[in-house]
Amino acid sequence: MNTQLNQRIVLASRPVGEPLPANFRLESAPVPTPADGQILLRTLYLSLDPYMRGRMSDAKSYAPPVAIGEVMVGATVSRVVQSRHPDYKTGELVLSFNGWQDYALSDGTRVHKLGDLARPSLALGILGMPGFTAYMGLLDIGQPQAGETVVVAAASGAVGAVVGQIAKLKGCRVVGIAGGKAKCDYVMTELGFDVCIDHHADDLAEQLAAACPSGIDVYFENVGGKVFDAVLPLLNTKARVPLCGLIASYNTTGLPDRPDRLPLLATTILKRRIRMQGFIIFDDYGHRYPEFLQEMGKWFAEGKIKFREDIASGLDAAPDAFIGLLKGNNFGKLIVKISD
Amino acid sequence: MNTQLNQRIVLASRPVGEPLPANFRLESAPVPTPADGQILLRTLYLSLDPYMRGRMSDAKSYAPPVAIGEVMVGATVSRVVQSRHPDYKTGELVLSFNGWQDYALSDGTRVHKLGDLARPSLALGILGMPGFTAYMGLLDIGQPQAGETVVVAAASGAVGAVVGQIAKLKGCRVVGIAGGKAKCDYVMTELGFDVCIDHHADDLAEQLAAACPSGIDVYFENVGGKVFDAVLPLLNTKARVPLCGLIASYNTTGLPDRPDRLPLLATTILKRRIRMQGFIIFDDYGHRYPEFLQEMGKWFAEGKIKFREDIASGLDAAPDAFIGLLKGNNFGKLIVKISD
Repeated sequence: MNTQLNQRIVLASRPVGEPLPANFRLESAPVPTPADGQILLRTLYLSLDPYMRGRMSDAKSYAPPVAIGEVMVGATVSRVVQSRHPDYKTGELVLSFNGWQDYALSDGTRVHKLGDLARPSLALGILGMPGFTAYMGLLDIGQPQAGETVVVAAASGAVGAVVGQIAKLKGCRVVGIAGGKAKCDYVMTELGFDVCIDHHADDLAEQLAAACPSGIDVYFENVGGKVFDAVLPLLNTKARVPLCGLIASYNTTGLPDRPDRLPLLATTILKRRIRMQGFIIFDDYGHRYPEFLQEMGKWFAEGKIKFREDIASGLDAAPDAFIGLLKGNNFGKLIVKISD
Repeated sequence: MNTQLNQRIVLASRPVGEPLPANFRLESAPVPTPADGQILLRTLYLSLDPYMRGRMSDAKSYAPPVAIGEVMVGATVSRVVQSRHPDYKTGELVLSFNGWQDYALSDGTRVHKLGDLARPSLALGILGMPGFTAYMGLLDIGQPQAGETVVVAAASGAVGAVVGQIAKLKGCRVVGIAGGKAKCDYVMTELGFDVCIDHHADDLAEQLAAACPSGIDVYFENVGGKVFDAVLPLLNTKARVPLCGLIASYNTTGLPDRPDRLPLLATTILKRRIRMQGFIIFDDYGHRYPEFLQEMGKWFAEGKIKFREDIASGLDAAPDAFIGLLKGNNFGKLIVKISD
């Protein structure tokens, strides 16, 4: 029997357009007690990711929505604090899906041991879902060849930063797009992209065209919106467009009031023989996670791939941090530190 | 020295929207005389295909446009009537690219011997570009699995008819879309599709939804327009959309004046993890033509795949026949018989 309280953030109402603080509600409940075969997990780090915006809506998507009053979903690094499960010992660190709360019960489903990982938060970033998304989307769908031009949006973000660095390792010319001078400087200086363009620029399309004199062979799409508009005319014959996110449209409430470009996109895909493919990383590539972990672990240990985290502090900071994520306010992988 | 005349149809002007008879001009010129290393080809059959509409425009595309005053391009079955080339004998039948004219010279480039093919016009249909397009697009990009639902537009056309029949051989549920009752009856009765829907129906979208109770796993796209609009909401998770044509938009002159659905298409591709891929058959799959010819030749000889031709008579019939092709007036593979 636990006498502590479990702080948790639930979905209070569904957002229309941008999420607002009022869409979330902080609640307290008793810390649950594990039954036989269960473990009690204490959240150390909560990952905040753009896909969560989709779960706040009840539109048909690849995963069911969070119900009103339910705890917001999310990947977490957590510690086993009580175990009535033979496979887990008290004190072990695991990757789990506790959601936005201090404590959660689990029967071991979707729980992965982290062993003695020196920086366990990396399991939410470079060595977790974002890094894996970058790795498989670029290499399996994008199939970059040395000398090709790869364009990456949200280039300083958790996925984009990794995409671009892998593309550099593969010998590509890499052009990033990011929001603001600080991020662009970081992308070029620290991450080694060839060019990085500020998407706030009025002449984004012209700058991108100038940065891609041989056109674009791979566009790693996680943004959509005006960045995709600038990319579309530059796509080369046989270009590949892995598509894992469309953050620019997550908050939209209807179709844009301008001429319908669906036929234009289809015609472009046809004439330039483009492959455009959506993917959801663990659903499509879960079986290749061990391969990724080995390769990426090696690159990271050798310093060939760098990774930046942006860590907010305390569960009650999560809603504002998440709202900011959708506006690009974070700089690096956004994580909330919940406890030590 | 030939004293006969070479009748030929040249591009007189570029169409704006639908091609008109005035965009073409019938000319006469002397029949050319082969130089050393050349052959003179007499056209027997001229293939008319939707892609030719693209060549009449000067918009950037996968192939250069036909110049004003130049002979319209096109695949032909022809006979060698004079040879100054060591590899060709007078009287041989070949697949060539004479274009819309009675005679053409060639040095052997893009000329393929047809041997003793009993119905040489088949080299323009089931055993040629349309059949090959159907075969590779469906099998390599579409990857249909037994029990899946495959939807095919222009189902009685040269490509669609073959797509659907191969999908039936692979154990799929096959739903065709065609223009008018006669074509739909043919598609179901002769070609063995499970269902065929008339695209003139006001309730096309509802009929398609009813015909695809388990959604759509493969949509073979060669039409676009309202058919694609009806297909989009029905595409299943992991659906594949091979894209080889968009006949519905070939005559359009601008973007449709309605809300922009480009973000909707991208979001659908993302959420349902769809693969959409354009291809140009000989550019992408030329190396696999022998494999196709063997397999398709066998299916056709065994009566497993049927093929219908719609043969117009005489070179001067080509412009009207082509204009009708873009309206769906043909019923089967459209070919013009030029000479015996």
